[in-house]
Amino acid sequence: MSAKILSQTYGKRAEHFDNVAAKDLLLTMERKKSNLCVSVDVTHSQHFLDVIDAVGPYACLIKTHIDIIEDFEPSLITRLQDLSTKHDFMIFEDRKFADIGNTATLQYSKGVHKIASWAHVTNAHSVAGPWIIPALASVGLQLGRGLLMLAEMSSKGSLATGSYTEATVRMAREHRDFVIGFIAQRRMEGVGLNASSDIVPPEDEDFLVLTPGLQLDVTGDHLGQQYRTPKEVVLEAGCDVIIVGRGIYGKSEHIDVQSTASLAEKYREAGWSAYEERLKKYSSES
Amino acid sequence: MSAKILSQTYGKRAEHFDNVAAKDLLLTMERKKSNLCVSVDVTHSQHFLDVIDAVGPYACLIKTHIDIIEDFEPSLITRLQDLSTKHDFMIFEDRKFADIGNTATLQYSKGVHKIASWAHVTNAHSVAGPWIIPALASVGLQLGRGLLMLAEMSSKGSLATGSYTEATVRMAREHRDFVIGFIAQRRMEGVGLNASSDIVPPEDEDFLVLTPGLQLDVTGDHLGQQYRTPKEVVLEAGCDVIIVGRGIYGKSEHIDVQSTASLAEKYREAGWSAYEERLKKYSSES
Repeated sequence: MSAKILSQTYGKRAEHFDNVAAKDLLLTMERKKSNLCVSVDVTHSQHFLDVIDAVGPYACLIKTHIDIIEDFEPSLITRLQDLSTKHDFMIFEDRKFADIGNTATLQYSKGVHKIASWAHVTNAHSVAGPWIIPALASVGLQLGRGLLMLAEMSSKGSLATGSYTEATVRMAREHRDFVIGFIAQRRMEGVGLNASSDIVPPEDEDFLVLTPGLQLDVTGDHLGQQYRTPKEVVLEAGCDVIIVGRGIYGKSEHIDVQSTASLAEKYREAGWSAYEERLKKYSSES
Repeated sequence: MSAKILSQTYGKRAEHFDNVAAKDLLLTMERKKSNLCVSVDVTHSQHFLDVIDAVGPYACLIKTHIDIIEDFEPSLITRLQDLSTKHDFMIFEDRKFADIGNTATLQYSKGVHKIASWAHVTNAHSVAGPWIIPALASVGLQLGRGLLMLAEMSSKGSLATGSYTEATVRMAREHRDFVIGFIAQRRMEGVGLNASSDIVPPEDEDFLVLTPGLQLDVTGDHLGQQYRTPKEVVLEAGCDVIIVGRGIYGKSEHIDVQSTASLAEKYREAGWSAYEERLKKYSSES
């Protein structure tokens, strides 16, 4: 891991990015003292908004699956945006685009969900090949959006490992205007560099790393998800943003506002402490 | 390639499958003398229905991207189903699920699109790992649905090659009740078998292979798609269903019904001739 990157504050690192969404996200993190992204995987609008309103004060980023919301109406986006302003967080639609270029462009910009029009950040798989990045950028760049590539996944038996991960990082490196970082389990600077690499990255190459699969107490679920703690993810693995879902708002269809807010604050605190410890550790090393 | 499979009619091969959607699809192909799947990648409901009504008589399968339709209403599904009955074709939502199990389950069953409730067939990437299959099966199997795994892609630079493709086929082989075949460029029987394989497939292992990236005349588009002819795909590579999109209904926002129907018939005829030639070739070999 690059001590040079890890010794720097999120705010300082905003200077490494030309992409508007990346800069905004890093500055939001610094301002709110939060590297917590809350993944809001619920299926009804009011539940969705209630969770976001409860966790909003503690999150730098809200991750959505807009396509699972049963009673979606365009007005939901306005209400989501109002909460984004009220609580000062950014929005990440976890769409995992994974189609050929032309289709991905349409999926990003069209349909009832019109993701590009409201999601500051979205993500894509690299499996379809590098063309998916310019395809999405053709819509997103002019709107100030940023893209995360899925370099690794937290699910058991994922094929996003080894040479797949390396190829993903090489694709990202060729599109630094739009790709701001990765969904991954560790830092990605320098990954995938080899003799045949066309691109030599700058010495201070900096990708944001957002990491799912966290719990304060570590267990697993029956559909193959594996979990780590905030300290393991931020301090030991050097990741930047922790993504937490049901661990914060529970499995019920109704939200317990107080417990949800209190757990969000716990995760924020755990993630931020791990980051402060990391700054200290790498500052003394560099 | 297995001469045993390729010497058999689609109708005969229906006996190899327990999955309802696979059986239905093969019998539809036989009945309609069509191995043509038309990919309807348009963004407005009326255009969508007009294209389907024009190509319906020639297609065994209509492939949709329901998430790009701007004016989607639940009633569109009823109208799509009416056309499916009128013209005797099945429906394949090309969703390319690619998330962890729990999320994929929700994306398949919930949201405004409720894909599982109407799409006879859908597809998934293997990148998230094998858990995506039982996750989707937990919703789809009881509805008589079938799943295609993306083993290969037609886009340039796709990472679905080599060991990725092999791992995908192994995942499919472990879930033959739900996985009916592949999106691929060639036949997949026997692929990925190695000393460590837990599962020994039957001698007459049979997967459906659906293949995109076709044109009657071969060229390429600027977003990295590569094309082959129906003869190359069905006769030479042994694939079962050809997937054709804009090559049939053109790039305009409005449909020329006569030209669209005529091109669909041309592709149906080209695909079916290649299949008949294949039957002849492999019957004499086996």
